[in-house]
Amino acid sequence: MKYSTKDIENILYKYLPIEEGYQRAVIEAMNYSFRAGGKRLRPMIMKLVYDMFAIEEKLDLIGPFMAALEMIHTYSLIHDDLPALDNDLVRRGLPTCHAKYGEDMAILAGDGLLNFAFETASKAFLACPGNVAVEKAFVSLAKRPGIYGMIGGQVLDVAMSGKPLDDEQIDFININKTAALIVCAMEIGGLLGGADETDCENLGHIAKCVGLAFQVQDDILDIIGDEEKLGKPVKSDEKNAKYNYATVHGLEEAKCYVMEMSRKAIMMIKDIKASNEDARQQLMELVNSLINREF
Amino acid sequence: MKYSTKDIENILYKYLPIEEGYQRAVIEAMNYSFRAGGKRLRPMIMKLVYDMFAIEEKLDLIGPFMAALEMIHTYSLIHDDLPALDNDLVRRGLPTCHAKYGEDMAILAGDGLLNFAFETASKAFLACPGNVAVEKAFVSLAKRPGIYGMIGGQVLDVAMSGKPLDDEQIDFININKTAALIVCAMEIGGLLGGADETDCENLGHIAKCVGLAFQVQDDILDIIGDEEKLGKPVKSDEKNAKYNYATVHGLEEAKCYVMEMSRKAIMMIKDIKASNEDARQQLMELVNSLINREF
Repeated sequence: MKYSTKDIENILYKYLPIEEGYQRAVIEAMNYSFRAGGKRLRPMIMKLVYDMFAIEEKLDLIGPFMAALEMIHTYSLIHDDLPALDNDLVRRGLPTCHAKYGEDMAILAGDGLLNFAFETASKAFLACPGNVAVEKAFVSLAKRPGIYGMIGGQVLDVAMSGKPLDDEQIDFININKTAALIVCAMEIGGLLGGADETDCENLGHIAKCVGLAFQVQDDILDIIGDEEKLGKPVKSDEKNAKYNYATVHGLEEAKCYVMEMSRKAIMMIKDIKASNEDARQQLMELVNSLINREF
Repeated sequence: MKYSTKDIENILYKYLPIEEGYQRAVIEAMNYSFRAGGKRLRPMIMKLVYDMFAIEEKLDLIGPFMAALEMIHTYSLIHDDLPALDNDLVRRGLPTCHAKYGEDMAILAGDGLLNFAFETASKAFLACPGNVAVEKAFVSLAKRPGIYGMIGGQVLDVAMSGKPLDDEQIDFININKTAALIVCAMEIGGLLGGADETDCENLGHIAKCVGLAFQVQDDILDIIGDEEKLGKPVKSDEKNAKYNYATVHGLEEAKCYVMEMSRKAIMMIKDIKASNEDARQQLMELVNSLINREF
């Protein structure tokens, strides 16, 4: 079985809140942004790593975490697009959350999604009460998107906007702002699938390489990408005077970096002791596709 | 032993992140708002309820949850004060987070605190791995502040700003926007202290009464309070044309309502099977003080 984006969405959508009650307005805004497309890369990676290790599929265990991580990713986009931050009106070819529902509702929708992510993940406690691996997965879900992960990277990105960045700072931003959620996806997939400590550590290294490749490819596409395929305006880094790997080191070096990181990741994926070869194969294809993607 | 606000703060402050590293800017903003005072009502209530039941005090179990709930309360104030929402520049006699650190940093500081709350609470898993009561406490921490709790109440409050509210809507706002976090405090205190299911249910009823009394007293103080004692401008509900229990039913009826809710809560607290009478006594005094408070 090979997962399509649609297959992953079919799992995720089951966990969305129903648009009813007095809080309907915020749920509509949350679901609008959640359903606005995207590659579903993080839950896809989580599921593939889970499948690599799991003897028996427990969807009521991995499903809540897949949905939770995608909710966290979505909230971060909603808040990132706000006027006080990137001030973007279009994403994935659609109006951003605040452009459609107003700034007040977009702030609350972001808060709602971040909070609902933990509420959703906590459903896994009901499926497996008293299970330490689930608790560890929760620790990862709480840590990686936070101030020592994604938010930490965003803060430096915001604070240094328009100012030159050195390599250490670019690395810090890419590792935290982007790679942290990929690390989270692989860690949780491994933990819930039953990977041992060494495997989990290796998954962390793999995820870091994948995240770095993904972010630098993003920087490259912002320079040479096709606005229509990307679903958002290009040259936004130039417009916002943002320094990143591609603008600092140039296109050719950036392309080499993406290739190198992906190659390293794939080599390490080959070495993982996995019981499910199909899942390993699709994970490697997925990483490969990140190099050649146009959106 | 009787807790002062300072005693509770001594517990809470241990869990604050250190202001260092590339993410320093956001941590400063988070800690500034967290340290800006307040009654520490929610963690105080949580600790008193915990003490009522717990045979032996485990501070590494209850401490993370006390800090987490106060972080969630603080984030909600930071985002509530933003220009797109209440647009308040002063709180507790100090500049609000965005007035001091800018709107971008205030959005990230709020996100950071909400996320760090769950990261902090997850430390309790290390203190007691595989413990179902801790997992249930986590479920409460994720549910009560969310779209089916605090955020749900905020949404109706924001959506109806300036429009007349009926009693059902006022109740919905007060139960969710304010009482939900008090319910969370009592539920978690009970769960971690070892209360049984009936006790936990009763604690929920008590907390709802306390929360409703607290909110309506807030509405009253907005009409007749002393700006200096409150540390924030009064008549803000009038200014923002906000309907609430006190503006709709009048001052006298509102005062009766606060008395009635507090009386009910105290009667129920008396009936709880608790092992620690001192804690019960202070909890009753605390509820009583909510009726007579001037700030």
